[in-house]
Amino acid sequence: MRIDRKRLESTIEELGRIGATERGGLTRLALTDEDRRGRDLLVGWMRQAGLRVTVDQMGNIFGERAGQPGRPPVMMGSHADSVPTGGKYDGQLGVLCALETIRTLNDHRVQTRHPVTVVVFTNEEGARFQPAMIASGVMAGKIPLEDAYNARDKDGLRLVDELERIGYLGPEPCVPRPLRAYLELHIEQGPYLEEEGLAVGVVEGIVAIAWSRLTIHGVQDHAGPTPMRIRHDALVAAAEVISGVRGIARQIGGELVTTVGSVTVSPNIPNAIPGRVTLSIDMRDPRDATLDKARWLLDGVVAEACRREGVTYELDHYWRVPYTPFDREVVSAVERAARATGAGHRRILSGAGHDAQYMAAIGPAGMVFVPSRGGRSHCEEEFTPMDDIEHGANTLLGAALELAGQP
Amino acid sequence: MRIDRKRLESTIEELGRIGATERGGLTRLALTDEDRRGRDLLVGWMRQAGLRVTVDQMGNIFGERAGQPGRPPVMMGSHADSVPTGGKYDGQLGVLCALETIRTLNDHRVQTRHPVTVVVFTNEEGARFQPAMIASGVMAGKIPLEDAYNARDKDGLRLVDELERIGYLGPEPCVPRPLRAYLELHIEQGPYLEEEGLAVGVVEGIVAIAWSRLTIHGVQDHAGPTPMRIRHDALVAAAEVISGVRGIARQIGGELVTTVGSVTVSPNIPNAIPGRVTLSIDMRDPRDATLDKARWLLDGVVAEACRREGVTYELDHYWRVPYTPFDREVVSAVERAARATGAGHRRILSGAGHDAQYMAAIGPAGMVFVPSRGGRSHCEEEFTPMDDIEHGANTLLGAALELAGQP
Repeated sequence: MRIDRKRLESTIEELGRIGATERGGLTRLALTDEDRRGRDLLVGWMRQAGLRVTVDQMGNIFGERAGQPGRPPVMMGSHADSVPTGGKYDGQLGVLCALETIRTLNDHRVQTRHPVTVVVFTNEEGARFQPAMIASGVMAGKIPLEDAYNARDKDGLRLVDELERIGYLGPEPCVPRPLRAYLELHIEQGPYLEEEGLAVGVVEGIVAIAWSRLTIHGVQDHAGPTPMRIRHDALVAAAEVISGVRGIARQIGGELVTTVGSVTVSPNIPNAIPGRVTLSIDMRDPRDATLDKARWLLDGVVAEACRREGVTYELDHYWRVPYTPFDREVVSAVERAARATGAGHRRILSGAGHDAQYMAAIGPAGMVFVPSRGGRSHCEEEFTPMDDIEHGANTLLGAALELAGQP
Repeated sequence: MRIDRKRLESTIEELGRIGATERGGLTRLALTDEDRRGRDLLVGWMRQAGLRVTVDQMGNIFGERAGQPGRPPVMMGSHADSVPTGGKYDGQLGVLCALETIRTLNDHRVQTRHPVTVVVFTNEEGARFQPAMIASGVMAGKIPLEDAYNARDKDGLRLVDELERIGYLGPEPCVPRPLRAYLELHIEQGPYLEEEGLAVGVVEGIVAIAWSRLTIHGVQDHAGPTPMRIRHDALVAAAEVISGVRGIARQIGGELVTTVGSVTVSPNIPNAIPGRVTLSIDMRDPRDATLDKARWLLDGVVAEACRREGVTYELDHYWRVPYTPFDREVVSAVERAARATGAGHRRILSGAGHDAQYMAAIGPAGMVFVPSRGGRSHCEEEFTPMDDIEHGANTLLGAALELAGQP
């Protein structure tokens, strides 16, 4: 039994048109009108495939294909939101391969012991509302529903109001539910599979992630008549922190990655000394102890940069997810399914956070990776060849079928 | 003959309420609704003072008090726009002291040989439309009218459309006009007068100013699964440039000041490696040769930072104003007037650009400075004591009267 490559390809193209950018990428931020149109299309497809569609309090969409009564489902899915000027594969490929798995089971009239459910998670990217993976976080009981509802985008709009506005504030409770297994297909977003010429990654776990937010308070003043000797420039301190954050990765080495991705300067005009700068710090490593050490170094980098410039600061380590190993049985099922497709594959760690990270706290979870050309993602150049996608989708199908079992 | 301190104080308070911020500052960006309301108030006051009010093609407002026929005017003024979260003194104080000078001449029924004209310049700050001092630049023939009209704010709105929208697209040609003299009172925006306990600065000239714009193109990618070894992070290169720009001032020393005031990061989210960063570089020095050297060092700083990170860039040195010495006769007149007020005073250079810089290309020009508390400006804490303002306004009155002459 194999998935229908042509059919899968056409759904990737059709969904990819909603929020498409001129340069072949995608901008479909969570809970925007584009997100609503994407969701409506997916719900229509789910209904056509005979699934029972429900929506929960966080806007997560579930489409269930029945199994034997009373058995917990094998859940498969990902997210359908994107970052700004992102790509057409991150997230939506996992949703569409899950849908293709259902369609293939339907084509062959396969009955399964456990129900098989497609899930579409809300606001995985964290591009519009922070933190990332907010809806699976609520489901896993790691983020209070009220906190998620009150998350605001940069225009001050609340997540709950935007959920309601686009018609996806559902009635189902967003809580842990019995799971046979959770499976997520996703692009690797790193260079390893492509570099080694492999089509499928059998994901063993997700690295630990730490997010911090730094606000530096300098003295806003005129850039002309203010002599250098009396300046307290928030941006000069911020620049030292950015260099220092890069330095932490150089110093510790190994698999640690450190990034300053976001900088906001006030008043941000050419002729004023910046009075306030806010920046984000993202650090990841497979080992929690390495991340602890990196955070300790970060505290020192920030203190020293701000001391030198004579500015004050607040450093908030506001989000931390520990290393998440996936379930051994699920990882083995994915590996057997990958082998059965005949595709080149290997075990791999995920450097990106995924909803699977929170789902692993609810039940047995695992992931399937497909390669990212040049290791690139979160950009318009994001691309995965259709040959690899086909191998990945067949791996997902095989693993789901094994885990769901047959009557 | 002395100005009326109470009356001047009340106009400062009344104009300062339009666009006032909660923390005592001012946000009245050029050609916004607040700017329109400020202009309307000023025009009303000018008409009440018997002035003949005209508006030119750049929205500059002139209010003329007649002299003997055929004689060129002594023009006094400044601007009424502010930076975001700026102060209530920068610009508007010069306009209001000019108005107060007119009112005082009226009180004492003084006739002058030359007309005395109040001018309010459009968009001096460069906070909304670049470059700064755009309207006096057009008047002096240094900026083509069409370029100024096509300047766009960050929302893409054109200057000419906004001029029209607020009702200040006037019919008078914006060209050099005969001038007896141009006088501008302004806050110092630096620390020197306050540090030395002086009330009035007799401005001898304005430092040379160079503005550059740097755009760095890195490779946008995911902050998680992208190993450090394959990164080309536009923000890491930008941080080195920011540190390097500070380093240029340290290396050259003297009176050179260097500032990166504005940074724009794309896509500017915590979990993407920045693909593009744009930043502004502002450098000033009394000596043009020093600024040449600083710019040469800047070229090297940028090239080296971008080479190290493997990113490309465009560096555009798009605006340069040479050192502007003021007219010796006008400077002497200001100095005599300052002495006559009995206030402590000294000769000084301006570190900030002013419309007087362009006016000096049209006719004899000079400036009067009053102190800035803590040297601070372009911020809500901007403040000048009323005692100093009174001395400054009387200096302006005395200089204007001497230069306008009596029949």
